Amino acid sequence: MQFSSKVIEQAVDTFAQLPGVGKKTALRYVLHLIKQDDTEQLAQIIKQLKTDLKFCDKCHNISESTSCEICTNPVRDQTLLCVVQDYRDVMAIENTGLYKGLYHVLGGLISPMEGVGPGHLNIETLNTRMAEGVIKEVILALNATMEGETTSFYIYRKLAPHNVNLSAIARGIAVGDELEYADEATLGRSITNRQPFSAFFTVK
Amino acid sequence: MQFSSKVIEQAVDTFAQLPGVGKKTALRYVLHLIKQDDTEQLAQIIKQLKTDLKFCDKCHNISESTSCEICTNPVRDQTLLCVVQDYRDVMAIENTGLYKGLYHVLGGLISPMEGVGPGHLNIETLNTRMAEGVIKEVILALNATMEGETTSFYIYRKLAPHNVNLSAIARGIAVGDELEYADEATLGRSITNRQPFSAFFTVK
Repeated sequence: MQFSSKVIEQAVDTFAQLPGVGKKTALRYVLHLIKQDDTEQLAQIIKQLKTDLKFCDKCHNISESTSCEICTNPVRDQTLLCVVQDYRDVMAIENTGLYKGLYHVLGGLISPMEGVGPGHLNIETLNTRMAEGVIKEVILALNATMEGETTSFYIYRKLAPHNVNLSAIARGIAVGDELEYADEATLGRSITNRQPFSAFFTVK
Repeated sequence: MQFSSKVIEQAVDTFAQLPGVGKKTALRYVLHLIKQDDTEQLAQIIKQLKTDLKFCDKCHNISESTSCEICTNPVRDQTLLCVVQDYRDVMAIENTGLYKGLYHVLGGLISPMEGVGPGHLNIETLNTRMAEGVIKEVILALNATMEGETTSFYIYRKLAPHNVNLSAIARGIAVGDELEYADEATLGRSITNRQPFSAFFTVK
């Protein structure tokens, strides 16, 4: 792609660094912004992302201070820890309104294909938190993908020395799904891990 | 979607104003930017889009000054004008290297569905340019869609009083395409508007 203006070229190159954005999409964004009366707000909020947001020292979640609202909330169960991949998963679980423990955000999943090893993730600090001895149960809430399962297994091995209940979120047929369209692996696991029918009516 | 932080919520809302970007994609961009060391460049270039770029007074193309490089280039044919929808089309035609005339950028297409009427486009200034009497030929290079054809027809009627050759870019089978996969409308037009075989070897 050849541009008549250096500014447009630079802008397209910069926008194309966003995840999943190619040069065509970047140009679409740039042309949209050129037509807008006020682009100050976008520039301002991008700066604020760096200045106003921090990572929580304890759980590594994104927060407006170095101790996040969840970690500092005295009402939350300090003995229960949920291990997730990133901020989006914290958001998703918080939106269910069914979890009252703390979180630990890994910041990614082990993926040799993408060059992400255990050392790139917040696993060492998880180990440190466990060593403090307050946490009694750890729930692994990672994606049901190859990378998610690998990471879960790595953490399972890593936390073995600690005296802690380790569980993983249930895999099975999604609520609202029809059996005939479920894949074999999911259906197989949902049969193997069948639950007492009464469990469906109790919210812990 | 509920966010734990006001800043993230604002950032997501702002990014979601970009064309084709929903809240999920906006959040993906925001989380990507939070992880970056340097986001200053993006904020800076967004500001520059407003300060450094202008619309050419004559052809309405995006330019670094109020007279664009194409309009002020003495080598370009001042009697030939190509009417296009936006900057992307100027870029596409310039990249062919086969056009040496001037442009007129409409800034959109007539689309009653999207509430875009002739008054929203740079058609009146096109009329003014024609009245100056320098331009001898106008090429309509608009999309082969309902909106493009409507706009072409509107301009055709509008320019009728001026003594000018009005043409439209050829519609037909794209170079490299196979006949059996072409739609009937395109194939039909390519037969009706068949060209002397010798024309394929002459570049005007």
